Amino acid sequence: MAMETGLIFHPYMRPGRTARQTVDWGVQTAIACDKAGFTNMLISEHASEVWQNIPNPELIITAAGLQTKRIKFAPMAHILPHHNPAKLAVMVGWLSQILEGRYFLGIGAGAYPRSAYLHGIKNGADTSFLNEMVRESLLIMEKVWKREPFFYEGRFWNAGFPEETQGERDGDAQHRMANFAPWGGGFPEIAVAGFSSNSPSMKLAGERNFKPISIYSGLDAVKKHWETYAEANIKAGFEPDRSRHAVTQTIFVADTDREAKKQVMEGPIGYCFNRYLIPIFRRFGMMDGFAKDAGVDPDKADLEFLVDHVFLVGSPDTVVEKLNALFEKCGGWGTMQVEAHDFSEDPAPWVYSLELIAKHVAPRISLPGGQTVGVEKRAAKAL
Amino acid sequence: MAMETGLIFHPYMRPGRTARQTVDWGVQTAIACDKAGFTNMLISEHASEVWQNIPNPELIITAAGLQTKRIKFAPMAHILPHHNPAKLAVMVGWLSQILEGRYFLGIGAGAYPRSAYLHGIKNGADTSFLNEMVRESLLIMEKVWKREPFFYEGRFWNAGFPEETQGERDGDAQHRMANFAPWGGGFPEIAVAGFSSNSPSMKLAGERNFKPISIYSGLDAVKKHWETYAEANIKAGFEPDRSRHAVTQTIFVADTDREAKKQVMEGPIGYCFNRYLIPIFRRFGMMDGFAKDAGVDPDKADLEFLVDHVFLVGSPDTVVEKLNALFEKCGGWGTMQVEAHDFSEDPAPWVYSLELIAKHVAPRISLPGGQTVGVEKRAAKAL
Repeated sequence: MAMETGLIFHPYMRPGRTARQTVDWGVQTAIACDKAGFTNMLISEHASEVWQNIPNPELIITAAGLQTKRIKFAPMAHILPHHNPAKLAVMVGWLSQILEGRYFLGIGAGAYPRSAYLHGIKNGADTSFLNEMVRESLLIMEKVWKREPFFYEGRFWNAGFPEETQGERDGDAQHRMANFAPWGGGFPEIAVAGFSSNSPSMKLAGERNFKPISIYSGLDAVKKHWETYAEANIKAGFEPDRSRHAVTQTIFVADTDREAKKQVMEGPIGYCFNRYLIPIFRRFGMMDGFAKDAGVDPDKADLEFLVDHVFLVGSPDTVVEKLNALFEKCGGWGTMQVEAHDFSEDPAPWVYSLELIAKHVAPRISLPGGQTVGVEKRAAKAL
Repeated sequence: MAMETGLIFHPYMRPGRTARQTVDWGVQTAIACDKAGFTNMLISEHASEVWQNIPNPELIITAAGLQTKRIKFAPMAHILPHHNPAKLAVMVGWLSQILEGRYFLGIGAGAYPRSAYLHGIKNGADTSFLNEMVRESLLIMEKVWKREPFFYEGRFWNAGFPEETQGERDGDAQHRMANFAPWGGGFPEIAVAGFSSNSPSMKLAGERNFKPISIYSGLDAVKKHWETYAEANIKAGFEPDRSRHAVTQTIFVADTDREAKKQVMEGPIGYCFNRYLIPIFRRFGMMDGFAKDAGVDPDKADLEFLVDHVFLVGSPDTVVEKLNALFEKCGGWGTMQVEAHDFSEDPAPWVYSLELIAKHVAPRISLPGGQTVGVEKRAAKAL
């Protein structure tokens, strides 16, 4: 089977867009992706960023879910330290029921200390502290999903599941606990995203058999992610499956290389990179992996460098060629997660690009070494 | 001005309805209410009840908000002890922005101990403990909405708002905190619902100038609610306005009295009362107020008694007459909150009833004593 396509919607809205414009663009994008044949749409959760202005992905997921047929949705990610875990477990279960299974759950620890501060966590830069919160939250959510009586008093939260009280009359099922367990019972598919080369998320994903998602930051990091994941996955008794690995990338496809490059340089993608992402990349050393791959000085890596050497921009033939070259070098992945951008003022070139990616690029990419890309498996190991 | 009409959607879905059916029925009902001219739609939040199977009203509010034009939405109510207050404050602000002001916030302490237990609260029957949680949550939410630096370490939660860091370059507004304050800035309109005659919620509503909503349980209780609210409201320096008082009721209107009674007795409303609500009313003494008003023995109060003596069921003329008689006795209220029921299998009689209520009943009801019913004011007193 061929590579699958997904979207990741941060959504990099140009500052000044209203909440309503953001949600409308999210729903419109979901409908376009569903029609084009995308497998999934991931939606970020951020409470502090102007360019990443969705604090509650579940709201867009619900609205978009009712207007689409096949595409799956996931928050990527619910920041577990910011939520009451029992409340979140019920919402995740109910939403997966609303979408009749077209849902999986992305989890994260949170990358922005000021967002952690807002939610009452002063040491939001201490990743081992945040990861302790993530593990306790996950433990509670799994207990809630099991629907067996417990009461857990944790370091960060308490939660429970009550004993069923007998009805006062025969057949008094009217008063039993409502069932908000995830669609199909059991646990939902869980996914985690990793960025840095030594991402601890990839180890967690391997250990727990969660779906691994790599935020693309160069070839070395992607290769390392898969190795870390696969090693932990084998050690935990699973068989690593490259088809479950998803990698995000900036991709834009048009009829010609020239047209594609022009759209990216002069349109919303270039606007966002010049004003928001390139300054961040530089500040936090995120340009290094890209610069190394191309053998250039990170300080000289600008938008045009990214377009020519890092992003996947061009005609379908060009992008297929670039992707096959990448896959040869790193072993490939199952789902290409296209980074969404704010084409809300003129959606046509963006929607056309999504169609070309899904229909004229992805079907021509297959995993090297005869590995096939299959449907996602629903499997998670209990803590 | 005349009485306004709203809906309250618990939603009393017949057990066995799926999550998708519930959400679809909610959206369909919202569209019908919007077309009929309803002022608002309140949606409950319950994590434990089969008949009240919406744990996250915000999901339906978003989906329905995108498909309606004028109607306002409110969760009635977010159970504050179950939420991380900062997380909830951001969501409320963002959702009020998505709806461009067609939103207000219902808050509550939670009435079901097993739902409290699920969310980590063992003493969920201790109302004074729950009310302490409500007050701390509200305090935190108001601080978050103000967007001024603070860090609060409370009994139940911590929360903060970070200092704005200066951008590293001139004009670096790209990295300022995203603004998720409620639509229009400041606080959202806040509403609280009361049921029992001595409801502490009505006192809180008066003190803080919140919108008071009475769950109808007989004339004495409604009169007492208004007195309690008005007394506290005056004491706090406000001028009580009956137009802000909303009262829930079971109402069904058809062309004739006979048709209306038949629909209620034999349709979804009767089904729900016989199986779920009447047993609850009896168990918790909630039938007493109704029985007293009609001078009958509470044990003999059955569905037909409710239809004939408590609910507002009949032709438009009959229901206008019943409402005017009620208003004469208790002083009236500004918004009639129609209790929603599960007509999802055959919506036509229900949609017709909503239209008759909004177009042929409500416009003929006005407050006694020359008081007018105006638009809701947005006003809340800071703690």
